[in-house]
Amino acid sequence: MTGQDSGPTSNSRKHFKLTFPREYIAHVEINRADKLNAFIEEMWLELRRIFDQLSVDPNVRAIILSGAGPRAFTAGLDVKAAANSALGGSGGAGKSDPARTAVQLRRHVASFQDCMSAVEKCEKPVICVMHGISYGLAIDLATTADLRICSKDSQFCVKEVDIGIAADVGTLTRLPKVVGHYGWVKEVCLTARIFGAEEAMRVGLVNSVYEGKEEAVKAAIELAALMAKKSPVAVQGTKELLNWSRDHSVQDGLRYTGVWNSAAIQAADVPTALLAGLEKRTPTFEKL
Amino acid sequence: MTGQDSGPTSNSRKHFKLTFPREYIAHVEINRADKLNAFIEEMWLELRRIFDQLSVDPNVRAIILSGAGPRAFTAGLDVKAAANSALGGSGGAGKSDPARTAVQLRRHVASFQDCMSAVEKCEKPVICVMHGISYGLAIDLATTADLRICSKDSQFCVKEVDIGIAADVGTLTRLPKVVGHYGWVKEVCLTARIFGAEEAMRVGLVNSVYEGKEEAVKAAIELAALMAKKSPVAVQGTKELLNWSRDHSVQDGLRYTGVWNSAAIQAADVPTALLAGLEKRTPTFEKL
Amino acid sequence: MTGQDSGPTSNSRKHFKLTFPREYIAHVEINRADKLNAFIEEMWLELRRIFDQLSVDPNVRAIILSGAGPRAFTAGLDVKAAANSALGGSGGAGKSDPARTAVQLRRHVASFQDCMSAVEKCEKPVICVMHGISYGLAIDLATTADLRICSKDSQFCVKEVDIGIAADVGTLTRLPKVVGHYGWVKEVCLTARIFGAEEAMRVGLVNSVYEGKEEAVKAAIELAALMAKKSPVAVQGTKELLNWSRDHSVQDGLRYTGVWNSAAIQAADVPTALLAGLEKRTPTFEKL
Amino acid sequence: MTGQDSGPTSNSRKHFKLTFPREYIAHVEINRADKLNAFIEEMWLELRRIFDQLSVDPNVRAIILSGAGPRAFTAGLDVKAAANSALGGSGGAGKSDPARTAVQLRRHVASFQDCMSAVEKCEKPVICVMHGISYGLAIDLATTADLRICSKDSQFCVKEVDIGIAADVGTLTRLPKVVGHYGWVKEVCLTARIFGAEEAMRVGLVNSVYEGKEEAVKAAIELAALMAKKSPVAVQGTKELLNWSRDHSVQDGLRYTGVWNSAAIQAADVPTALLAGLEKRTPTFEKL
Amino acid sequence: MTGQDSGPTSNSRKHFKLTFPREYIAHVEINRADKLNAFIEEMWLELRRIFDQLSVDPNVRAIILSGAGPRAFTAGLDVKAAANSALGGSGGAGKSDPARTAVQLRRHVASFQDCMSAVEKCEKPVICVMHGISYGLAIDLATTADLRICSKDSQFCVKEVDIGIAADVGTLTRLPKVVGHYGWVKEVCLTARIFGAEEAMRVGLVNSVYEGKEEAVKAAIELAALMAKKSPVAVQGTKELLNWSRDHSVQDGLRYTGVWNSAAIQAADVPTALLAGLEKRTPTFEKL
Amino acid sequence: MTGQDSGPTSNSRKHFKLTFPREYIAHVEINRADKLNAFIEEMWLELRRIFDQLSVDPNVRAIILSGAGPRAFTAGLDVKAAANSALGGSGGAGKSDPARTAVQLRRHVASFQDCMSAVEKCEKPVICVMHGISYGLAIDLATTADLRICSKDSQFCVKEVDIGIAADVGTLTRLPKVVGHYGWVKEVCLTARIFGAEEAMRVGLVNSVYEGKEEAVKAAIELAALMAKKSPVAVQGTKELLNWSRDHSVQDGLRYTGVWNSAAIQAADVPTALLAGLEKRTPTFEKL
Repeated sequence: MTGQDSGPTSNSRKHFKLTFPREYIAHVEINRADKLNAFIEEMWLELRRIFDQLSVDPNVRAIILSGAGPRAFTAGLDVKAAANSALGGSGGAGKSDPARTAVQLRRHVASFQDCMSAVEKCEKPVICVMHGISYGLAIDLATTADLRICSKDSQFCVKEVDIGIAADVGTLTRLPKVVGHYGWVKEVCLTARIFGAEEAMRVGLVNSVYEGKEEAVKAAIELAALMAKKSPVAVQGTKELLNWSRDHSVQDGLRYTGVWNSAAIQAADVPTALLAGLEKRTPTFEKL
Repeated sequence: MTGQDSGPTSNSRKHFKLTFPREYIAHVEINRADKLNAFIEEMWLELRRIFDQLSVDPNVRAIILSGAGPRAFTAGLDVKAAANSALGGSGGAGKSDPARTAVQLRRHVASFQDCMSAVEKCEKPVICVMHGISYGLAIDLATTADLRICSKDSQFCVKEVDIGIAADVGTLTRLPKVVGHYGWVKEVCLTARIFGAEEAMRVGLVNSVYEGKEEAVKAAIELAALMAKKSPVAVQGTKELLNWSRDHSVQDGLRYTGVWNSAAIQAADVPTALLAGLEKRTPTFEKL
Repeated sequence: MTGQDSGPTSNSRKHFKLTFPREYIAHVEINRADKLNAFIEEMWLELRRIFDQLSVDPNVRAIILSGAGPRAFTAGLDVKAAANSALGGSGGAGKSDPARTAVQLRRHVASFQDCMSAVEKCEKPVICVMHGISYGLAIDLATTADLRICSKDSQFCVKEVDIGIAADVGTLTRLPKVVGHYGWVKEVCLTARIFGAEEAMRVGLVNSVYEGKEEAVKAAIELAALMAKKSPVAVQGTKELLNWSRDHSVQDGLRYTGVWNSAAIQAADVPTALLAGLEKRTPTFEKL
Repeated sequence: MTGQDSGPTSNSRKHFKLTFPREYIAHVEINRADKLNAFIEEMWLELRRIFDQLSVDPNVRAIILSGAGPRAFTAGLDVKAAANSALGGSGGAGKSDPARTAVQLRRHVASFQDCMSAVEKCEKPVICVMHGISYGLAIDLATTADLRICSKDSQFCVKEVDIGIAADVGTLTRLPKVVGHYGWVKEVCLTARIFGAEEAMRVGLVNSVYEGKEEAVKAAIELAALMAKKSPVAVQGTKELLNWSRDHSVQDGLRYTGVWNSAAIQAADVPTALLAGLEKRTPTFEKL
Repeated sequence: MTGQDSGPTSNSRKHFKLTFPREYIAHVEINRADKLNAFIEEMWLELRRIFDQLSVDPNVRAIILSGAGPRAFTAGLDVKAAANSALGGSGGAGKSDPARTAVQLRRHVASFQDCMSAVEKCEKPVICVMHGISYGLAIDLATTADLRICSKDSQFCVKEVDIGIAADVGTLTRLPKVVGHYGWVKEVCLTARIFGAEEAMRVGLVNSVYEGKEEAVKAAIELAALMAKKSPVAVQGTKELLNWSRDHSVQDGLRYTGVWNSAAIQAADVPTALLAGLEKRTPTFEKL
Repeated sequence: MTGQDSGPTSNSRKHFKLTFPREYIAHVEINRADKLNAFIEEMWLELRRIFDQLSVDPNVRAIILSGAGPRAFTAGLDVKAAANSALGGSGGAGKSDPARTAVQLRRHVASFQDCMSAVEKCEKPVICVMHGISYGLAIDLATTADLRICSKDSQFCVKEVDIGIAADVGTLTRLPKVVGHYGWVKEVCLTARIFGAEEAMRVGLVNSVYEGKEEAVKAAIELAALMAKKSPVAVQGTKELLNWSRDHSVQDGLRYTGVWNSAAIQAADVPTALLAGLEKRTPTFEKL
């Protein structure tokens, strides 16, 4: 995939590893294994840049997001760094009155949220592979993906109440819309208790559980490959319409769908797919 | 039920079979078994007329929707017919500019959506019985019903991405509101993979699974009979309030409920039901 | 906990028993066991007063709600009393025209709903323990709690259609937002069929099932104690943000979260929690 | 315009007069001058059919709605007929309990509202010309149009409180979104006082006032002709996007606009209009 | 109106004067003229109690709200008292961390807002008469009324930015929904400049301007009397439906209207009003 | 203001002129007078960068936006450039199928909209000064500002239908929320007729009209200076709360306000302002 590396997605990546295991499939790995893939501020800014680029890269049709190393998807926010950054370190914001500090914090949180939301807004489907320690930010991040799979050894935790805060970069907003069991969501968010792969599977946080991380990544690649074989007009429209519908009434969802498809249905992909179906062969679709 | 047939619901039905297996219960069968119950445009227009009529027919209190023949609930849209109709066939819309084609498509999709929505808007509860092949439009249609049951041999598929389009007559809007497992919804919509009755049961797409279609229809009749024995004011109000609440905040849902019930609670059904309860006998309710 | 009893939460309670089994934990028991804990109007007014007080009592961090006696969480509305109250008894509203009666009913229902909503609006997490007969109002009430657990002998029923009305103090609005399986919600609301603890567990109505009521209450106390050990700023913020997000789009949820946390994150609890974490000891948080 | 009369919009019209004063312009007149253009039920059903047809008639680009005769745009609902129809006449609904009557009324009002909404949903811009008596339904109807002009002798009145009801086919919902002066809306709706053309102009209910009805109709034709000269893709898109935006947040409005225009901007009309602009001549656009 | 004073609305009123100038009309006067009618906390609690009672008092059909004395409708919040109350005085909240202070403030503001909202939620129409100094809270309060009139000498000011805060008991939320000129709203809220009666009239903040306070009160009584002569079912329904529609889409507004009126239209007031209209006499309506 | 130029807002600006006429006031001028300030793509990207920086620059408290040169605020989009960019020039997008072209267009419009929205999202108040030709994009841009003033010679036009498109970067979404006269909005958007300063003033599009551009800019500076003297915590909170309330119900608006102010009210600005008020001197507020 050398063509990829000289294209728009090739600028240097410091904390992430970006590979292309198959045609049309990008694999983004959080690459700070020595720190259990814990996040510092420049990482989430980089994450946003990567997903903004993949979103419009015509060579990409499905994306896998996972963590490097054997021990953790991510242990969450790098607490030491976060303490300095969020609370203004030794001096900083501490000197302002609480209202001015609030302004700084609001801007900081909004920017952090926007970086996470870049994964949700990415026009291509994103499959998140979780393993080992998956705490705090791990849940904020994973719930921005379209679907989640994990390895047996995964340990999940909505950790934030344990450091005295309500989770604020997405978990409390997205988890209740991802998982149908609202009482369970309340429980794990209010107690910060650790739960495993089996429980995550039972409540619908993950779609399937694999023996180990390698198996899970392999399965994600197969799943991504399946999506990548479909019409990109259809796949990207499907993602968009599902996300819109989550946030709107059925009536608004149907109307938006009709408006969206009035252009999308004119794609060359429709006759291409129909014809291939009749002829029982795999269709090839133009890039998008 | 001869009285039914000369009433407002008795006009000729070409592609559907309408029977009344018990008092107050209507059974609508998609009746194009030789084509696997695949839909052509005049079918969905007919479906709408049928449900619009049943909605206000005082002799009907619960409705069963199923597919005729042993092989399919419905194989979805009749692809050949759809290709002609949606894309204007050999001539038609193809000659216009894309914006004019978009106007035609938008009108077409809106009309199709409205026909499907007639099942959801029907004031009486609708139980959908699925069996065999249940692809594409099968899911759009089934999710407009109030609840779904199926036979063991059911094969489900959100098929649309396989013909190059994002599903646009309801699945992408309603499925995430019917099934709590959002990641699973994303997976089956983005991959168009086939899944069976057991998986449908596990994620909550269906309420129960039966050995065969006959058993499922029989169970549906029992369920419908149970609903039909209740006060129709209470049953129809319950359906309406659940649907409204799905699309609104809790605060708006509570208010709407209060306004609705300020009239409904004045029904003769309340003292009738209370009295029957005290006297441990089955109450009889006026038609609605 | 004598201090409690002379404080704002100590005024006489007629139909409820209020105890403090552990530091920071309040236990509210519906205390009308001889009538299966059935509700009369003055009970829901009292319930509101109790939760309004606990909501702002700094000595309380988590609340348990259960029913006294061995037989029922609550059998629901006291039907005889309700018939008199809702329908104006022998004289009353019955003389007015239907529109005037509707005004009276709307006010009555709104006041009843507000009392139930006091549990949801209570700033502290509420764990509902259900056992035995849990009919009608039992579901309206339980779904205002943050999470629900139950004993094996629980029997649940959305009873209202059996007395000729659509449930109107919360079940139809909240149950579909608590349980992800929408078809199941429709079924139990439209048929009023009784279901047990196992089914409630499977669909996500309860978080766990215990052998008997005593075990369930004990488990609730442990769960409450776990929450009470956390930062109250974090716990109460988490509850609020989850409830807000349920009723809003993801975008609005994220924004509201940022605004909320811009003050909350300035709590002394954050450094306290971080430090205790590093030193591996249990932190102590100021009251709230 | 003989071609029109044999087209889809040519079926017989009993209570309305439909003419085509200029190319692309339809003029719908309420044609019951001897009864001050008061509405009976079959009239609003006919109104709906007419606007549904004009909405998709490619020969129509702008529509004028006015009342025949010198004395009234419309005096509103034909009270005698309405009393019979709404309240079930001599027998009918009066025998049912209030809840059953409520079901009938709800269906009746919904059907009436839908007929009025047909004017708002009509894809072509509608200019309403008001004159003389314009009471009750006159306001419900006029506020479904895109803009309103009137003659000096117009007398307006939100009449409904004077017959004991809250206006229910649109005024209370649309008037506050048409006129920015909310206190004035409250005043005229709560007092049913009559107001004149000058006041209507001052608060923004009408766009302009003309000496007499003839001058107003002439002005409406000029205005319609101006709209009809523009690209129909642009004009109809503009109407749709303004209506959508009224009911949604700015963020949702912008997104919907982008999706809508992604097809619309591909119209041949854009280069046609640009080129005509550069060459300073009037462009001709394909029908829509 | 002695009957009034021994009824539910007769409990002692410390800071307000409640009179009944005509049948069915209540007049609430802010009665702290020596302090320019500035508000202290116990005043807004009392205001809420008064409007909660008037809301359900069948002897009241319209309400006038004005300020006692010649100099001010109200000068707003009593700054000294507010400073003590809002900021916890010398000790109090100041000792907590900013997050705990925020909790106290949030509860305080919510309670204050609820008191103001009691005027909006009052089921009877409220006419606010403003005169002289009408600063800060004056605007928060006046915009909860249904309509506003004033005397020539009125001086208005959205004063809050001048004391370092964004107005938080209603002005910023309601003023843009009362006045159509959004840029003007921004200007007066961001600059705190004083404006007079003529400007208030021009932008639609008030419905009319009178020579002096006496004339304005007299006009308000006439206006209230006009409303009080109408069917109370119709008037109160009209208020409710206008308020609901302001906060919802047209589609939701129409639906809610239909549900509301399905009971309201069954009032005896409809035939009473129709008959009186035909016989050209003033109808008499049952109390509500 | 040399400090400004070396700060974060000092990077080179190609198409805009940025000056600081007074302390805390920034003046952004569209600086392409030879082309009537028409916009090309890199201009709106630059505009976004400028407002993103000013939004968080503590030295800025109010912003003026105007156009350089005597002839135009802006003539709108540079048509030639736009034709190339939007439609892909001679080759480009034209080769794709309509659905692929739609994807490109959607991305393009979304990016353009985001740039415009940067003015609305800017935390500081923005005063737009319009003069001369103010067509098309001029209205999209001006309605993102908080308030608008203009010179007598201004000529406004919602020009888009004249080039065959529905306005899509903000006018159709924001104009109806800025101006209360909805029929007027429809008229000018559907006819693209030119209107002058007086009419803009009458309908509320501008707050005031000045003799010439110089007088208008001077007035804007005075207005900005007035805002800049107030507490920046109060002013910026006021802008945010007004914008939020525009897009939400009153109930949601009040709640958000309470949460926002729970931090903001803790500003040192409150005692500072109160004290200065009592001592009748001008307060000085810390930067924000």
